[in-house]
Amino acid sequence: MKRVLIINGPNLNMLGSRENDVYGSRTFEQIYRDLESFAGEHDIKLSYFQSNIEGEIINKIHASRDSVDYFIINPGALTHYSYSLHDALKSVNIAAVEVHMSNIFSREHWRSKSVISPVAAGVISGFGEKVYSLALFYISGL
Amino acid sequence: MKRVLIINGPNLNMLGSRENDVYGSRTFEQIYRDLESFAGEHDIKLSYFQSNIEGEIINKIHASRDSVDYFIINPGALTHYSYSLHDALKSVNIAAVEVHMSNIFSREHWRSKSVISPVAAGVISGFGEKVYSLALFYISGL
Amino acid sequence: MKRVLIINGPNLNMLGSRENDVYGSRTFEQIYRDLESFAGEHDIKLSYFQSNIEGEIINKIHASRDSVDYFIINPGALTHYSYSLHDALKSVNIAAVEVHMSNIFSREHWRSKSVISPVAAGVISGFGEKVYSLALFYISGL
Amino acid sequence: MKRVLIINGPNLNMLGSRENDVYGSRTFEQIYRDLESFAGEHDIKLSYFQSNIEGEIINKIHASRDSVDYFIINPGALTHYSYSLHDALKSVNIAAVEVHMSNIFSREHWRSKSVISPVAAGVISGFGEKVYSLALFYISGL
Amino acid sequence: MKRVLIINGPNLNMLGSRENDVYGSRTFEQIYRDLESFAGEHDIKLSYFQSNIEGEIINKIHASRDSVDYFIINPGALTHYSYSLHDALKSVNIAAVEVHMSNIFSREHWRSKSVISPVAAGVISGFGEKVYSLALFYISGL
Amino acid sequence: MKRVLIINGPNLNMLGSRENDVYGSRTFEQIYRDLESFAGEHDIKLSYFQSNIEGEIINKIHASRDSVDYFIINPGALTHYSYSLHDALKSVNIAAVEVHMSNIFSREHWRSKSVISPVAAGVISGFGEKVYSLALFYISGL
Amino acid sequence: MKRVLIINGPNLNMLGSRENDVYGSRTFEQIYRDLESFAGEHDIKLSYFQSNIEGEIINKIHASRDSVDYFIINPGALTHYSYSLHDALKSVNIAAVEVHMSNIFSREHWRSKSVISPVAAGVISGFGEKVYSLALFYISGL
Amino acid sequence: MKRVLIINGPNLNMLGSRENDVYGSRTFEQIYRDLESFAGEHDIKLSYFQSNIEGEIINKIHASRDSVDYFIINPGALTHYSYSLHDALKSVNIAAVEVHMSNIFSREHWRSKSVISPVAAGVISGFGEKVYSLALFYISGL
Amino acid sequence: MKRVLIINGPNLNMLGSRENDVYGSRTFEQIYRDLESFAGEHDIKLSYFQSNIEGEIINKIHASRDSVDYFIINPGALTHYSYSLHDALKSVNIAAVEVHMSNIFSREHWRSKSVISPVAAGVISGFGEKVYSLALFYISGL
Amino acid sequence: MKRVLIINGPNLNMLGSRENDVYGSRTFEQIYRDLESFAGEHDIKLSYFQSNIEGEIINKIHASRDSVDYFIINPGALTHYSYSLHDALKSVNIAAVEVHMSNIFSREHWRSKSVISPVAAGVISGFGEKVYSLALFYISGL
Amino acid sequence: MKRVLIINGPNLNMLGSRENDVYGSRTFEQIYRDLESFAGEHDIKLSYFQSNIEGEIINKIHASRDSVDYFIINPGALTHYSYSLHDALKSVNIAAVEVHMSNIFSREHWRSKSVISPVAAGVISGFGEKVYSLALFYISGL
Amino acid sequence: MKRVLIINGPNLNMLGSRENDVYGSRTFEQIYRDLESFAGEHDIKLSYFQSNIEGEIINKIHASRDSVDYFIINPGALTHYSYSLHDALKSVNIAAVEVHMSNIFSREHWRSKSVISPVAAGVISGFGEKVYSLALFYISGL
Repeated sequence: MKRVLIINGPNLNMLGSRENDVYGSRTFEQIYRDLESFAGEHDIKLSYFQSNIEGEIINKIHASRDSVDYFIINPGALTHYSYSLHDALKSVNIAAVEVHMSNIFSREHWRSKSVISPVAAGVISGFGEKVYSLALFYISGL
Repeated sequence: MKRVLIINGPNLNMLGSRENDVYGSRTFEQIYRDLESFAGEHDIKLSYFQSNIEGEIINKIHASRDSVDYFIINPGALTHYSYSLHDALKSVNIAAVEVHMSNIFSREHWRSKSVISPVAAGVISGFGEKVYSLALFYISGL
Repeated sequence: MKRVLIINGPNLNMLGSRENDVYGSRTFEQIYRDLESFAGEHDIKLSYFQSNIEGEIINKIHASRDSVDYFIINPGALTHYSYSLHDALKSVNIAAVEVHMSNIFSREHWRSKSVISPVAAGVISGFGEKVYSLALFYISGL
Repeated sequence: MKRVLIINGPNLNMLGSRENDVYGSRTFEQIYRDLESFAGEHDIKLSYFQSNIEGEIINKIHASRDSVDYFIINPGALTHYSYSLHDALKSVNIAAVEVHMSNIFSREHWRSKSVISPVAAGVISGFGEKVYSLALFYISGL
Repeated sequence: MKRVLIINGPNLNMLGSRENDVYGSRTFEQIYRDLESFAGEHDIKLSYFQSNIEGEIINKIHASRDSVDYFIINPGALTHYSYSLHDALKSVNIAAVEVHMSNIFSREHWRSKSVISPVAAGVISGFGEKVYSLALFYISGL
Repeated sequence: MKRVLIINGPNLNMLGSRENDVYGSRTFEQIYRDLESFAGEHDIKLSYFQSNIEGEIINKIHASRDSVDYFIINPGALTHYSYSLHDALKSVNIAAVEVHMSNIFSREHWRSKSVISPVAAGVISGFGEKVYSLALFYISGL
Repeated sequence: MKRVLIINGPNLNMLGSRENDVYGSRTFEQIYRDLESFAGEHDIKLSYFQSNIEGEIINKIHASRDSVDYFIINPGALTHYSYSLHDALKSVNIAAVEVHMSNIFSREHWRSKSVISPVAAGVISGFGEKVYSLALFYISGL
Repeated sequence: MKRVLIINGPNLNMLGSRENDVYGSRTFEQIYRDLESFAGEHDIKLSYFQSNIEGEIINKIHASRDSVDYFIINPGALTHYSYSLHDALKSVNIAAVEVHMSNIFSREHWRSKSVISPVAAGVISGFGEKVYSLALFYISGL
Repeated sequence: MKRVLIINGPNLNMLGSRENDVYGSRTFEQIYRDLESFAGEHDIKLSYFQSNIEGEIINKIHASRDSVDYFIINPGALTHYSYSLHDALKSVNIAAVEVHMSNIFSREHWRSKSVISPVAAGVISGFGEKVYSLALFYISGL
Repeated sequence: MKRVLIINGPNLNMLGSRENDVYGSRTFEQIYRDLESFAGEHDIKLSYFQSNIEGEIINKIHASRDSVDYFIINPGALTHYSYSLHDALKSVNIAAVEVHMSNIFSREHWRSKSVISPVAAGVISGFGEKVYSLALFYISGL
Repeated sequence: MKRVLIINGPNLNMLGSRENDVYGSRTFEQIYRDLESFAGEHDIKLSYFQSNIEGEIINKIHASRDSVDYFIINPGALTHYSYSLHDALKSVNIAAVEVHMSNIFSREHWRSKSVISPVAAGVISGFGEKVYSLALFYISGL
Repeated sequence: MKRVLIINGPNLNMLGSRENDVYGSRTFEQIYRDLESFAGEHDIKLSYFQSNIEGEIINKIHASRDSVDYFIINPGALTHYSYSLHDALKSVNIAAVEVHMSNIFSREHWRSKSVISPVAAGVISGFGEKVYSLALFYISGL
């Protein structure tokens, strides 16, 4: 059984109530229910963590060392400046799939640069809430 | 009645005891008392929040969605890199007035760039503690 | 009694007839009438100057040396390249409040840089015609 | 039935015989067979095109206007400079999923910039040959 | 007696279990024991603080104002973007020695720039765990 | 009848007597006579304005609001820095054709950037005095 | 009799069916018919070439050495990176008029730089399909 | 007899009353008297022009074509952006000596770049009011 | 016996008829005859390929995998932007000597950067047609 | 016994007589006496070399190959541009500790970049003359 | 009596035999004779030093501390990179006039930047051999 | 008879004992013997100079004016910053072939820029010790 932790960064708790044209109208709780059902069918134990505090995410990453096999991480805007998050992912031996709901490459200029990507296994960006199931689908096939 | 929340970012709890030549010698508590008196006269309900933790400020912004009409925000040094704060302000439907006590355009080079300004209604920079009353005066006139 | 001179730079004579979505629909003459009434109540002697010619503004700044206590200056697009205006303000001993009706930080990239700010007492940007009364309010409290 | 065309750019005909540490040891023909079997199960009509010549890829994109619903495109190194490919994708009304087998964000500096991404629906980068099935999985769910 | 506070930033709690080739195999607790013994011999009262949360470090810095004479600070990746930490150090009157276990000047390009250095008394970078004892040795000689 | 105003910026009064290898040997008066004859045949009322003073050109643009249908503007070196001219053209509702006698893209590096182009209908550069008749020919065909 | 070859680069075969708001609704064949009629009246022998393949355009340029007097070239997106096209134009002794239907200076940032302009006689940008007749009009007057 | 025109740009009329630590305490009229006496002894006919208006300086340069042999020009802050002044100097056949009273290379960063220098015979910067007599001394020796 | 393929990129078919001051007056056929005679004496089997089409060169490189030991490649202007060519050379196991007839480091700025060099064994630039025989001489000595 | 060579670069012979506020008032001879006494107690054989000539320092580095175990090098301003010194250190197998008396990160912008650091074991900057004893202390503990 | 030392940097020993169009045809010995005669008349004791070795110039600057009142320094190409020379001039208390025979602002791009200017009293550039007498004339008037 | 001087810059005296993977294991003396034998057969008089001191190389270049026909110069790391060497080569009328043993274009970023190339006849980089014989072969064929 694969153990997968989804990590959502700052402001992603606002999904469903914020900029619906960019991020869709479903809350993450609704999205998560679908993901769990997919996980259940593919021998994946799914868990979920969200924080608006960079350091709490780092704490969670450290604490996952023996209990998680894969991260699916949507770092929110930390994507663009949090070298601390970069270092945290490097400090544990867990493959991370970086996801972004919007296409970060066709928005403001500063969104096109990720300081997380160099330590991610790969990046999925721009398919709305589908980025989470794509990441899960990828992990299920490993 | 207008509901206004003043948000002060990192290190602004040190007002009055830090770099007095730049920031003046009054603590924010002293400044706040004057602001409250102005607010009282202009049908404004004023409240105040300070944190040195970026994510706590984001939490506060989210939590203000139904209880606040305007933000007056002095992001401290988060001004210059916190895209997470930028996204937080965008995620709620509350006009924000960005204020800086010092003139950020005539200090170190990196202080002249704000990543918050693009999502602020406007910016007031460089009049010492008066930036708060200017922001309040502006809101009182809306 | 405080003597305040409002200086408007290039194209600001077009207020009210130009890009109303950005600058509002009132002419500066209409705005000025309100400012005068505020000034009258606060022991401020207000005067006003507009020119589309950079050098005439510089002349006016020089000529104000003994007759003006504060400038409120909206340099228009000179904001972004007129080092001569920068030097003119530096050459007299009069505090200048720099104002912009639109939020120059959320428009074209080149508008976010001001060569005037380093010699201004402070900057107020993005509150429409209110920037003038905010500046006046600030001066009235000195 | 969805009609999907996979487009592979320059040098991708060398898969399986080139830099196996980066791109894996399977030829694209082998990969394609698996994709076809997935497609068959999901009511997708899959086709495939590869060329080392930028203009031939543009020709193919134009010619697909009435016969294709989705592109899965791996532009190879054209990713980094072919504004012509960018324009070609914009000139037809077909959603394109951009894929890269390697994580382009953790290799040479110039590989981290894509001129294609702004006109892609989304980007999947860094999961080896799995990027094709991820793209297909995404399309199957639309 | 000199009072010295060692502050370790994000991810430094992982010392000994993370990237041993870069950071060595000892935990900070082991390192700290040696430092304490040195401190004991040189009339230094040593204490220690670690957090992954930027704002908690700032809080600690503020709280140290009357109880600490020198900081030895390893800001981790905050080194490269935390202007808030920069401002926090400036807001108290305590000399800070900035240390880095790896040579930040011979790693990724972004690691060679420190936003903390301008407010540090000095910088020691690249001698592994020895940077802490070097800093202590320096302070002991003041 | 179309009303067209040709505006020539700084130094263009020197045509015919200045750098003949770059700008040709005819004065603008000679050029203008030919343009008038073309205009006469195409139901165009042509007029002409030249100034070396940026602000006078802005004044002229403002004053043209009800009496001119098209501008043909050769901003001279103001092309490269006059954001005030940019704003002036934006402030009136008159289409402007930007012309340059020399090919500004094959001279000094700074000449290849125009701050006027973003608000021009189009740009004609590099055909000597013919740029004026090309602009007129274009307008005549509207 | 002047011999003029119009060269259209990548994606210009899509005229009339692509992004009509930017490029108009007429196909190039329709545009060309009007150009031929103008050419017929001005002793110009007009011919036309389009390719999506950079190298084929270069081949055509070389082959035109003895049979063409002027090029009218719309390089499409090759404008922005094809130094090979730059060199091809330099390698033959034929004056080239560079044209762009849209105003390349008021679109995406990368479109404002042309690597072709330094070897063109002049540039006409932003008048829709009229850029071709403007170029022809210019040549007819030589 | 050599005819020399001294041209002073914006704000130089303020000499003697402005930033005395940088520019000295003498007015230009006082300085000029000394220069005239030197000129008288060296068969030089000296004249003088100052304006705060860029275009008036350009007009003066044009008008000097037949009556002046050498310019001594202190462009003030126009030094840093007035390409129009650059072009004006190029449009007449008169050697220009560029002077600056302060050492423009050791002040703000933007002051170290002159757009005038490429068309000046030479540059003298940083010797206070002596730059004028140095220029005159140079011309007297030609 | 060593098998060497000379690959010439865009516009090199014009040698002898193009910009003789830069590239000399001999056609490549004339140059090649001399090279063949040198090759004959040194047990080298020489062949030759030229194309103006980037993708055809890539095809040729792929096709050479079992029949060529060394490339001598003059990529023409592809030198400066063709990352596809870069990848093609990396995808085969054949040492490539990069040659340029002109000194690319003393011409236009953009010519001084080669995207091919990082995957070449070495570079020879600036000795006219001699660069081919130098490359051959080098290979003959291996 | 460890053999340590201290290398001081250009202008460091002026210690004690130059910019005392930055570098202190002791000559290096005085500093050296203290270092020798420390060395004596720690089984270190200390020697010293100073030159203002870059090449002589390189010669000394080469000549040290068999007689020195560690360098303590203060390259002076060579720090910022001497790639030759960089290469010299790389060409011998001797660990080098780079020291700077002033904090090079809080002075002029160009001083914050060291071309030496990438080949140094570590860097100590900003503790005045103490940087030498810190380096020695570090070596003594190896 | 004023003691003035002229310092010429690398390659200036070649004056008179090198690039006469740029530097004139007189050797420095010839130039020096004229300078000496001027010096004689103005109570100036002139001496002269040239070296192609950066460090020897630094040695000379140090050695001049008690025997020289003013430097006239032409650093040659050291102008553009020798921070060591910058530091040397700063380490002694002697005013330095920086001179360049050619106008360094109208030649190659890299020549327009001087790392020496910030520590020079002033700069004279572009009047051929006259720059030396201009500097002497300036000093004579102090 | 052709007279050729080989000039080797800083650190090249370490050949054979330094970084053998990059530079090979032979000393330059061994390499030189082979070059002399080639020279003997081709009527070339070969000589050799090495120095770690930039100024001594410049002296040697000057002194070669009447005794040398060609330079083969390997500037070592001076390649990347010695504008003085650039000027020295320009000051004599001797063609210089610039050589580098390693491929400077595929190493650290700063090694890809040569300030010497613009004044060299050509550049040979990346063939190990063969670069010297390639240069000699080229000269022998002139």
